[in-house]
Amino acid sequence: MQRIALIGAGFIGAVHAKSLAANPDVDFRYVYDVDLARAETLAVSHGAAAVSSLAQVFDASQVDAVLIASSTNKHAEHLRLAADAGIAALCEKPIDLDLERARETVAYVEASGIAAMVDFNRRFDRDYAEVKRIVDAGEVGDVELLQLSSRGPSMPPLEYIAVSGGQMRDQTVHFFDLATWITGLDAVAVSATGSALAEPRVADYGDVDTSIATVRLANGALVQIDSIRRSGYGYDERIEVFGSEGLVEAKRHRAGQVARYGSGTVTESGMHAGWFERVQPTYAAALAEFVGALEDGRSPSPSLREALRAQAVAEAATRSLASGREEPVLS
Amino acid sequence: MQRIALIGAGFIGAVHAKSLAANPDVDFRYVYDVDLARAETLAVSHGAAAVSSLAQVFDASQVDAVLIASSTNKHAEHLRLAADAGIAALCEKPIDLDLERARETVAYVEASGIAAMVDFNRRFDRDYAEVKRIVDAGEVGDVELLQLSSRGPSMPPLEYIAVSGGQMRDQTVHFFDLATWITGLDAVAVSATGSALAEPRVADYGDVDTSIATVRLANGALVQIDSIRRSGYGYDERIEVFGSEGLVEAKRHRAGQVARYGSGTVTESGMHAGWFERVQPTYAAALAEFVGALEDGRSPSPSLREALRAQAVAEAATRSLASGREEPVLS
Amino acid sequence: MQRIALIGAGFIGAVHAKSLAANPDVDFRYVYDVDLARAETLAVSHGAAAVSSLAQVFDASQVDAVLIASSTNKHAEHLRLAADAGIAALCEKPIDLDLERARETVAYVEASGIAAMVDFNRRFDRDYAEVKRIVDAGEVGDVELLQLSSRGPSMPPLEYIAVSGGQMRDQTVHFFDLATWITGLDAVAVSATGSALAEPRVADYGDVDTSIATVRLANGALVQIDSIRRSGYGYDERIEVFGSEGLVEAKRHRAGQVARYGSGTVTESGMHAGWFERVQPTYAAALAEFVGALEDGRSPSPSLREALRAQAVAEAATRSLASGREEPVLS
Amino acid sequence: MQRIALIGAGFIGAVHAKSLAANPDVDFRYVYDVDLARAETLAVSHGAAAVSSLAQVFDASQVDAVLIASSTNKHAEHLRLAADAGIAALCEKPIDLDLERARETVAYVEASGIAAMVDFNRRFDRDYAEVKRIVDAGEVGDVELLQLSSRGPSMPPLEYIAVSGGQMRDQTVHFFDLATWITGLDAVAVSATGSALAEPRVADYGDVDTSIATVRLANGALVQIDSIRRSGYGYDERIEVFGSEGLVEAKRHRAGQVARYGSGTVTESGMHAGWFERVQPTYAAALAEFVGALEDGRSPSPSLREALRAQAVAEAATRSLASGREEPVLS
Repeated sequence: MQRIALIGAGFIGAVHAKSLAANPDVDFRYVYDVDLARAETLAVSHGAAAVSSLAQVFDASQVDAVLIASSTNKHAEHLRLAADAGIAALCEKPIDLDLERARETVAYVEASGIAAMVDFNRRFDRDYAEVKRIVDAGEVGDVELLQLSSRGPSMPPLEYIAVSGGQMRDQTVHFFDLATWITGLDAVAVSATGSALAEPRVADYGDVDTSIATVRLANGALVQIDSIRRSGYGYDERIEVFGSEGLVEAKRHRAGQVARYGSGTVTESGMHAGWFERVQPTYAAALAEFVGALEDGRSPSPSLREALRAQAVAEAATRSLASGREEPVLS
Repeated sequence: MQRIALIGAGFIGAVHAKSLAANPDVDFRYVYDVDLARAETLAVSHGAAAVSSLAQVFDASQVDAVLIASSTNKHAEHLRLAADAGIAALCEKPIDLDLERARETVAYVEASGIAAMVDFNRRFDRDYAEVKRIVDAGEVGDVELLQLSSRGPSMPPLEYIAVSGGQMRDQTVHFFDLATWITGLDAVAVSATGSALAEPRVADYGDVDTSIATVRLANGALVQIDSIRRSGYGYDERIEVFGSEGLVEAKRHRAGQVARYGSGTVTESGMHAGWFERVQPTYAAALAEFVGALEDGRSPSPSLREALRAQAVAEAATRSLASGREEPVLS
Repeated sequence: MQRIALIGAGFIGAVHAKSLAANPDVDFRYVYDVDLARAETLAVSHGAAAVSSLAQVFDASQVDAVLIASSTNKHAEHLRLAADAGIAALCEKPIDLDLERARETVAYVEASGIAAMVDFNRRFDRDYAEVKRIVDAGEVGDVELLQLSSRGPSMPPLEYIAVSGGQMRDQTVHFFDLATWITGLDAVAVSATGSALAEPRVADYGDVDTSIATVRLANGALVQIDSIRRSGYGYDERIEVFGSEGLVEAKRHRAGQVARYGSGTVTESGMHAGWFERVQPTYAAALAEFVGALEDGRSPSPSLREALRAQAVAEAATRSLASGREEPVLS
Repeated sequence: MQRIALIGAGFIGAVHAKSLAANPDVDFRYVYDVDLARAETLAVSHGAAAVSSLAQVFDASQVDAVLIASSTNKHAEHLRLAADAGIAALCEKPIDLDLERARETVAYVEASGIAAMVDFNRRFDRDYAEVKRIVDAGEVGDVELLQLSSRGPSMPPLEYIAVSGGQMRDQTVHFFDLATWITGLDAVAVSATGSALAEPRVADYGDVDTSIATVRLANGALVQIDSIRRSGYGYDERIEVFGSEGLVEAKRHRAGQVARYGSGTVTESGMHAGWFERVQPTYAAALAEFVGALEDGRSPSPSLREALRAQAVAEAATRSLASGREEPVLS
């Protein structure tokens, strides 16, 4: 049984609270938020206690692990506090939007020896995990080409764009991680191009909302990722891994399986309206991996270092958007 | 907020306990089971209290509603106790395996004026509800033919067969209900034929494991239902409603969306291994309808009387299996 | 090389003419039709000669085989002429609408020793042949249940209904044949029920346009066939064969593979508008089997006797529609 | 009625011969090939005459149009002969592997005023034409991103690679054409990257067998094309067009619609084994457009100039493979 404190009681904090309450190996202790009332509301509905100071959270006599769902600019600080206290940490991505600061944080946390994991939750999607299993088993042979689509339903507000770090760091990074995780291959170079088509004002922030990134992996295999902020038709992800012995595909998900046959057309259930509906089960699964690793004394995965690698690809892709040429991935 | 007690802490009771704990309009009070230890285990993990007597359950000063998940032969008795206490009831199907006793129970409960609902949970499946919405909206025109498949993954034990009431009353009854609910039409006659192919010893119980029932609805439309106890390939349901203006289909569900392309074949994700994986979300949705109706002062649906109608079709189908001819539905 | 004469230059005759002209093992000699001008038009566009007398057609010094695509009431007569002349015959179904006369014709033709085949073209559909291969290979184990749907796009004219022999003999008969051919099992009894829903005047002819037939096979397996004259959404066929080791399905065909993703729905390509578009490739394949058998000295299949068996099931189903009970198949 | 001569009696010439013989508006006159015996075999089986000199082919008193299916290095010469003779021409792609020589040829042919068309047959695929119709109708709004996959089943022989002009000019060019044709937008720049993964010796020819090309269209929309020489699982093409109002997809084609449901997996029909099986109907459709345009006095499309534009994109993509940077499309 792991005693866990949750930092952050916003939307994603509430998602984690539900998983924490439902996990049989978790003793859900505390909820901390800069807004104490918000922490209390969340705590009370899941049998935990709200706390008003980080000192209570990072008290190793009461807490075995923290789940860091604070605002992005606090992740690094909270990771360091966990390292100092000798408390395990499961942290929302990114470690820090600044790659150099992220690197320093990872080095600091690794030196402390605590168990730490980044919540790249898509790795815990049933279909993506199955794709990895198939690739690992050699069923598609040597990996030669990947195709990944990442398409959100609607433009985030410009205030979000302003602090997001840009499409590569904020959205595409999940798919940089998936591509290297599924194949077990490092990214060596990346070329990215994009436009502000859904919302031209995105360009004012030096950002794009519709982009293509092409990654070259260590074995010469190629990865194609298209990232779209506003699909208009719902939340849409898919992955193909092509290899010397065949292809494996994690297909688009539909929200239902209803088909209406009319003259000339068949109208079927559409996509999920939003990302949360699509990826919801992955949060509990990621938490289960973290808790299971703590229980077993294993290192949980994805580690901070793995997250750093995905971030380094996003960094190179961001440079490529500006330079218009292929950029090496500097890890 | 509805104060609810759960009767029955077996497999399906545990499913209901989870829904009760998660429903924001429910104050989950008690768990009762003939095995008190089992009740306690379930109660403690969901913040409820175990009780050892039915008097505590049927105490209207403490409880607004009961969820009856006791063994089949106790349903009628527990419904009558709810009626006597003036407590609302959500009851697992069937009301009673004996149609006459079920009729008497419904009359008794209706006379009491309590809100009562039978947990025909498939009505709350997202896809089936969508099919009904489409049919109700007239999008397929006048209903002319339905096709429903009900296929369980593996033979239940013979001890279960012995007390199940037979395939029509136990398995097909859900689909008799779906057919009449979706179309809003009464069943007038039914013809059934079957064989004991998966397990020949099923015939020793006067039962079948592979059957076809053909129902004639009030408007002359025809309904085809195939029921299979052991599919071997997982849990499989599908529904088609054909009308004068087109067809609507609720397709088979696959457990995932992964496809492997090889030479000559594509291997895709299979069906769900069991019924529970397929219908799991319907339990919470059925509970939400029940609780919502209580909160709003509406009559919850499906009512006991609706359940009785489906049971009458199952009864006629059971007679037809024996007589070899079409039998009228006597309601 | 087989010298072949075609009898009948109507719609289906024109289909056969095209296959005859394209088949490299066929020397397409003659076209005969009671309307000589029609015969000439068809002959000239395929490099054959029109002939005005049946004596020219049934001249074994010039012709090795005939393809009988005359009107239904002439099939038996033309089969007998082929038998008398010692010329092989490929005949459109049915042999004769009257079962007794069909039986006599088959006996007569068999006595002559000519090679003869009935054009049950659906057997030559790529998908149905694949289903049979899978069933024959034992990949679904022992056959336990079949489901077949036969749905035409629109009501035929009442004049056609009047001479069709009824839905069972005219439409469902193809699926009686498919069910027994795929499984290799004889039909022992059949129960049918139907309504005149698409066109109530169909009832004036003692016929139905929407029906369900349930066939019992020799091993106790059950077959469910729904037949619909007017789908409204295009031509629709599908087959499922369920066995002790799994299920094999020949899915509905769509006319294309285009999908439009919009908010809430995906609109996909519809069904083929008509039966011909769906089954077109089967005609050339059936002809190839006939010609190949002649070239190799094999007996072509489906034989007249096999067609007779399907007709006997249709006859029993027609009786069942009237009697309201299961009827034995008398072969 | 158009009198047509065919130049070239190889594999693709034989495909065209079949279409020419079947088209009711074509009087199929001559077959010419450097190998006269091969021309004779093809001619005789389709009711045409073999000729041994190009003078007979380019005789405007006998021939209205030529179908140029000669070897690639002869296309330009045969187009010029058609221009000189005032005979219409339908020419296999490419006009000439050398872009400059292709440009000169187009100018020469245009100056002559003959009707001329390049056989970009994929434009006549039912699904791709439907996609274009949907895009033209504005149903996906403004085009923002395209994804096209082009995957052949197996490595062509190295002798073919040696004279192919490289993957961009030989394979991807069809998809450069489709992307600009469907969207009605010009390509302005292209970036390509690739590897020799299926056959490392391809690198000896300065070529790749697995590549990604990213095209920027005039409105800022992005196009992603992955080209694979050896899929190993069959012939695989798909297209997605994403716009401001939704997505339209021309899905992969399967060779059949058979599904086997087993425990844990469903095995479905695979892809077509080869490209010809997949695109076969497009040849007759392209010919019908050419002949129809001649009959109506319209200019047939795709014109030589349209083909030149696709070739210019392929040229820029070929430069990009070498330079490692985005290259402008010089038209």
